[in-house]
Amino acid sequence: MNAEIVGIGTELLLGQIANTNAQAISSSLAGIGVDVYFHVVVGDNHQRIVSTLRRALERSDVVVITGGLGPTPDDITREAVAEVTGATLKRDETLVAAVEGIFRKLGRDMPLENLRQADLPTGATAIAPEGTAPGFWLEHEGSLMFAVPGVPWEMKAMLNKTILPVLTERTGGGTTMSKEVLVVGLGESRTHELIRDLVDAQTNPTIAYRAGAGIVRVRVTAKAANETTAVGLIRPVESAIRERLGHHAVPGDAPSVADALGNMLRDRGATVAVAESLTGGLIGAALTGTTGAGDYFAGAIACYSSESKRDVLGIDEAILTGPGAVSEEAAAAMAEGAAQRFGADLGLSVTGVAGPSEQEGKPVGTIFVGASFGGRTEVRHVQAYGDRDNIRAMAATATLDLGRRLLQEQ
Amino acid sequence: MNAEIVGIGTELLLGQIANTNAQAISSSLAGIGVDVYFHVVVGDNHQRIVSTLRRALERSDVVVITGGLGPTPDDITREAVAEVTGATLKRDETLVAAVEGIFRKLGRDMPLENLRQADLPTGATAIAPEGTAPGFWLEHEGSLMFAVPGVPWEMKAMLNKTILPVLTERTGGGTTMSKEVLVVGLGESRTHELIRDLVDAQTNPTIAYRAGAGIVRVRVTAKAANETTAVGLIRPVESAIRERLGHHAVPGDAPSVADALGNMLRDRGATVAVAESLTGGLIGAALTGTTGAGDYFAGAIACYSSESKRDVLGIDEAILTGPGAVSEEAAAAMAEGAAQRFGADLGLSVTGVAGPSEQEGKPVGTIFVGASFGGRTEVRHVQAYGDRDNIRAMAATATLDLGRRLLQEQ
Repeated sequence: MNAEIVGIGTELLLGQIANTNAQAISSSLAGIGVDVYFHVVVGDNHQRIVSTLRRALERSDVVVITGGLGPTPDDITREAVAEVTGATLKRDETLVAAVEGIFRKLGRDMPLENLRQADLPTGATAIAPEGTAPGFWLEHEGSLMFAVPGVPWEMKAMLNKTILPVLTERTGGGTTMSKEVLVVGLGESRTHELIRDLVDAQTNPTIAYRAGAGIVRVRVTAKAANETTAVGLIRPVESAIRERLGHHAVPGDAPSVADALGNMLRDRGATVAVAESLTGGLIGAALTGTTGAGDYFAGAIACYSSESKRDVLGIDEAILTGPGAVSEEAAAAMAEGAAQRFGADLGLSVTGVAGPSEQEGKPVGTIFVGASFGGRTEVRHVQAYGDRDNIRAMAATATLDLGRRLLQEQ
Repeated sequence: MNAEIVGIGTELLLGQIANTNAQAISSSLAGIGVDVYFHVVVGDNHQRIVSTLRRALERSDVVVITGGLGPTPDDITREAVAEVTGATLKRDETLVAAVEGIFRKLGRDMPLENLRQADLPTGATAIAPEGTAPGFWLEHEGSLMFAVPGVPWEMKAMLNKTILPVLTERTGGGTTMSKEVLVVGLGESRTHELIRDLVDAQTNPTIAYRAGAGIVRVRVTAKAANETTAVGLIRPVESAIRERLGHHAVPGDAPSVADALGNMLRDRGATVAVAESLTGGLIGAALTGTTGAGDYFAGAIACYSSESKRDVLGIDEAILTGPGAVSEEAAAAMAEGAAQRFGADLGLSVTGVAGPSEQEGKPVGTIFVGASFGGRTEVRHVQAYGDRDNIRAMAATATLDLGRRLLQEQ
């Protein structure tokens, strides 16, 4: 069974928003063994939506549409689906009541526009609204078509409550499972050199790469009748990869270095505190992105200026005027200061130059990261590159990874 | 002139990465008056890449391909483009030297695989590598085709240095300009009610919406021969929208509430400090995302536990044991504490329940935000909804917006 995800909305084509919905849906469909072959994005234009949906129905078993289900006149997904499937739109009284009920619960008057959201193509099954927009699904000439709102959390709820259960019933099992090995401190081509023979030898699982912001993800993907068989195919290949890459491979199944570090801390009953400079809060935000972060996250301090490094973190004035705020010495003192301020077991720090211009004579991309744990403090120099976003992301990754390695070694 | 953006990479179809490249390219093409009609994503599969590229060349004047130009065997964009355009691949000696030079500069040995990256379809013009992967462009039967790497910062550099200059020369002017009015504290349908007649009356500029994480963006888009004319079309409509929406409309041209607040602070020579709880660093990261944030960002403290709110921020124990860490009183004390700790003019704070379970008897989504400026402290209760990411993002937006409104009123 193969699928195509169609995003509808001119805001996507104007570049005002990234198509994160396609990512979330793809990831979930892979988990139930549905192969996604295409993502397409089209604007709020009736004819182009219609031709896109026609082609999708021709070539794909499953079509998932996101967006264009809101109350405003630029929301025309309902009309386009009706045309493509030869249906007409009919107001669904149960949906009228549901939409009215939502506004009553919010204590707001319902604008009349919102009643358009209760219109359904004849033959379609309604999906109850999560926010204010209902979704729907239907079968047409052997293909399944789902339409859900573009608002990410509303889409996700309908994905989990309706799309995945309906598809799981149809596929009758089978799964595509991926496992990623996170690699820090090696480039993509160096990683490939170390595991080339494994890549060449494999057909199921397959091995592929993606690189970004100081991290290479080696993806091992197996297709199998069930999860147990898929895991059995993946594990030996994963082990071989980890052996080749040594300490550069982040242990465990976590989807990010932040989560990997969080899991290690939780296992040890330890806590972490962070002193951030150029990242401004990215590391704290990453460490608290997952449910249960309260188990290990003590706190973070983002200090941009030298004054705040001195006054809030307690960094020695002699370090700031001597080696400078961007130095090994400052990174070490910041890591120790963070642990002390929050009474945490592990202290992490990062200081560096995000650009656009050099600082203290150090070029853009100069990064020092620090970690302090169990009386030992380590500092590492990292040369980051790319634009401001990439430099900040690389700095955050390097910081979290130094903490991970220091914990692992003890 | 219309364009299509083709992303190549199975990692996109497996949902392991969002197609942020399509967003960045779309945004830049709109700026030079090139209409993007489609985004397509296809995996590392030769036949599906070939059929996608054939269709793109048929229906679009410009095709921009991202991804599949790396050194590893799953990178097959070069081969697919050669097939579609009837070319063969030929090793380019200038590119060989460029790729070798990059590795020399990094002090690393060049894996032999990387030489594949110097292969070009005959008739194509090379685009010099930024990282290690070169790009290229060519003309085929009246369409222009560009191929650039999938690594975002490498793609962006080639977009700015090659794609945009080549296209600007061909289009001979003309522009599509968008202006967004950021709206905080009103839903999408309530916003539409207030400006419906303006939306109905407009053809150029057009007006559309997108909603997400506590913010509605009202987009005014004009097409015109040049930027001055486009601005002239947009401004009166924008003013009318702002008048209707009152203080809910964030003033200025900034792309986010964080940047709007940053600009206001810079204009006044004022600084900001933040005390974050459930957002963990998101607000600090947002305030420091833009070059020049050092002008106004004093620092941020992320405190998850009650102990750290007391010990690091200096919140009165009586507040934490009385009204609790998630309360109006705590938000007020956190805002004042943040300003004091960093010696900042504006103190911001947020405390609340990100979920998945309630806290201190307060339900998931309960948020209190605070702002303290010029001797005045304001606190607001916000009810957030959706998943953990959405609740955290809504909390960050509400915090930044309260600071914006407090500054604006003084």
